[in-house]
Amino acid sequence: MNDSVKLSLEEVASLATESLTTQGFSLQQATAISKTITSAERDGCSSHGLFRVAFYVNALQNANTDAHALPVIDYPKPAAVRVDARNGFCPLALQIGVPELARVAKQQGIAALAINNAYNIAALWPEVEQLAEEGLVAMAFTCANSFVAPAGGNKPLFGTNPMAFAWPRDGKSPLVFDQASSVCARGEIQLHLRDGKSIPEGWAIDSNGNATTDPKAALDGAQLPFGGYKGSSIALMIELLAGALVGDLFSYESTEQDNAGTGAPFGGELVLAIDPTTFNGGHSHLDHAEQLFERLLSQEGTRLPGDRRHRIRAASTPVEIPQSLHQTLLGYCN
Amino acid sequence: MNDSVKLSLEEVASLATESLTTQGFSLQQATAISKTITSAERDGCSSHGLFRVAFYVNALQNANTDAHALPVIDYPKPAAVRVDARNGFCPLALQIGVPELARVAKQQGIAALAINNAYNIAALWPEVEQLAEEGLVAMAFTCANSFVAPAGGNKPLFGTNPMAFAWPRDGKSPLVFDQASSVCARGEIQLHLRDGKSIPEGWAIDSNGNATTDPKAALDGAQLPFGGYKGSSIALMIELLAGALVGDLFSYESTEQDNAGTGAPFGGELVLAIDPTTFNGGHSHLDHAEQLFERLLSQEGTRLPGDRRHRIRAASTPVEIPQSLHQTLLGYCN
Repeated sequence: MNDSVKLSLEEVASLATESLTTQGFSLQQATAISKTITSAERDGCSSHGLFRVAFYVNALQNANTDAHALPVIDYPKPAAVRVDARNGFCPLALQIGVPELARVAKQQGIAALAINNAYNIAALWPEVEQLAEEGLVAMAFTCANSFVAPAGGNKPLFGTNPMAFAWPRDGKSPLVFDQASSVCARGEIQLHLRDGKSIPEGWAIDSNGNATTDPKAALDGAQLPFGGYKGSSIALMIELLAGALVGDLFSYESTEQDNAGTGAPFGGELVLAIDPTTFNGGHSHLDHAEQLFERLLSQEGTRLPGDRRHRIRAASTPVEIPQSLHQTLLGYCN
Repeated sequence: MNDSVKLSLEEVASLATESLTTQGFSLQQATAISKTITSAERDGCSSHGLFRVAFYVNALQNANTDAHALPVIDYPKPAAVRVDARNGFCPLALQIGVPELARVAKQQGIAALAINNAYNIAALWPEVEQLAEEGLVAMAFTCANSFVAPAGGNKPLFGTNPMAFAWPRDGKSPLVFDQASSVCARGEIQLHLRDGKSIPEGWAIDSNGNATTDPKAALDGAQLPFGGYKGSSIALMIELLAGALVGDLFSYESTEQDNAGTGAPFGGELVLAIDPTTFNGGHSHLDHAEQLFERLLSQEGTRLPGDRRHRIRAASTPVEIPQSLHQTLLGYCN
């Protein structure tokens, strides 16, 4: 990048925090969001890095947003934790809920955390990775805006509905994946539009339900679930888990409630944590899993999910962001 | 079917039970297996119906099989149930474990059931459907034989690793799906081979790792995960959940342990149950979900997972099986 600015992780964090506090976020909300953004920049995942600050700031235009919200935790059943984000943002709710989920899961063997009433613009991998770093196996599910047609259908209904999973590893970063139920991220279509490129077949349909390779027609139409009806079933499952099960909104309801059209999804998230020492009866689940990973990697052309992110993290070079983004953020700080 | 035999569900059940007991299964093992087989025939799922009796009988050739095994249940943590099938078959282990999983999940909010040391030749939908009929949300995962190449690879590693999910409905059969992590069931490739037809591209690769439409080459090579690397991640997750997490075998270990080459997968299963009354705070999760289903079905060309099976069940016609299969089963009874 020619027109780029190099930042240390500390600079990324303070730039995010200051942008958000100056724009009206409480220090608690801003700090939690900033941590998520900094993790993304650290791992080379710029689409969830400082680029997202604007999404958070724009979300304040929604009538119900509370950038000073203090989340409230309760324990509806022995293996269940619930955090009401009270119309604030997901990172602070997770900061409060995830350590409690870990504690309860270790005690009970398995536990569930429901997040409610949260604006959630972040990726899911930070929370599952955090749990796996505590030795737990974790899954997370959330709905998003209504962009994806169900299999056989031709109109948006589901969100891009990500599912994340993490498995702990001894002395290594956990194995982590965080994947949308759509063939591709919405941002990938937007990048094709920006660059004047057509998109591959199978990503989306136009507003008449016909296959399209035109990114504009795709954005006006509907994205497709990955893997046909199987991905569609997974998207439906995620609507049910992160919507009706936790007593929160489906993707289409979240879209309808986005009164300012900011595109910031509002609703729930479900996180599950399982303590793998529960069942293994002395057999080392960690060593056992490494044998599987070795078998997998012995096949040329394969990789473990999350490897690329962890390699970038290990390299720990300074973060490079476009100068235009840097200017926007400095503008937020005034 | 010209050369077919019509049976009532009672006749299906007693034919299965008698075949199995005569071939050496205890009445308890045989009755549990017979229930699973009868549910499949009732729902028109003949590939998991009486056709499977031969798989169970053949599994007895494996040195470790115990057709008289009495499963043992324990509770390693407050929200965890474990059933050691003791080298018997999965249906009896589930018959003991699933009601306990339901009880514990209602108490704790969420619970996990691990099945260990089981021969599992059945589908997963019966257990998740049973849990949803009790008002719970359920998921199940199991490994199978090593037939599927990881994304980017060219040799079998994963099983066809199914994941099942069920959601309860008021006055209706639960919403249920049970889908392999491979593009297609292995049986579909076998049917193409039998009928001398080529298979669609994308189902499998040959033993050199090249795309193939030849069913024989596909069976000698490797099946492919659905949806590319995303389906491969799910297959990997299922290996970890139903293998290392529950302290049991991965698919490739199961294949290696199949000393008689019967193809009957031996290993573990993980079943999760969540009580949806835990989080909804008085909001009806059932009515809420019906609104989503209505939205989905308002799009022409869509259907709910499991609908076809439930429609066939509702029709409750007598079961029709090929005369050759009937003869085989009568042979088992002598």
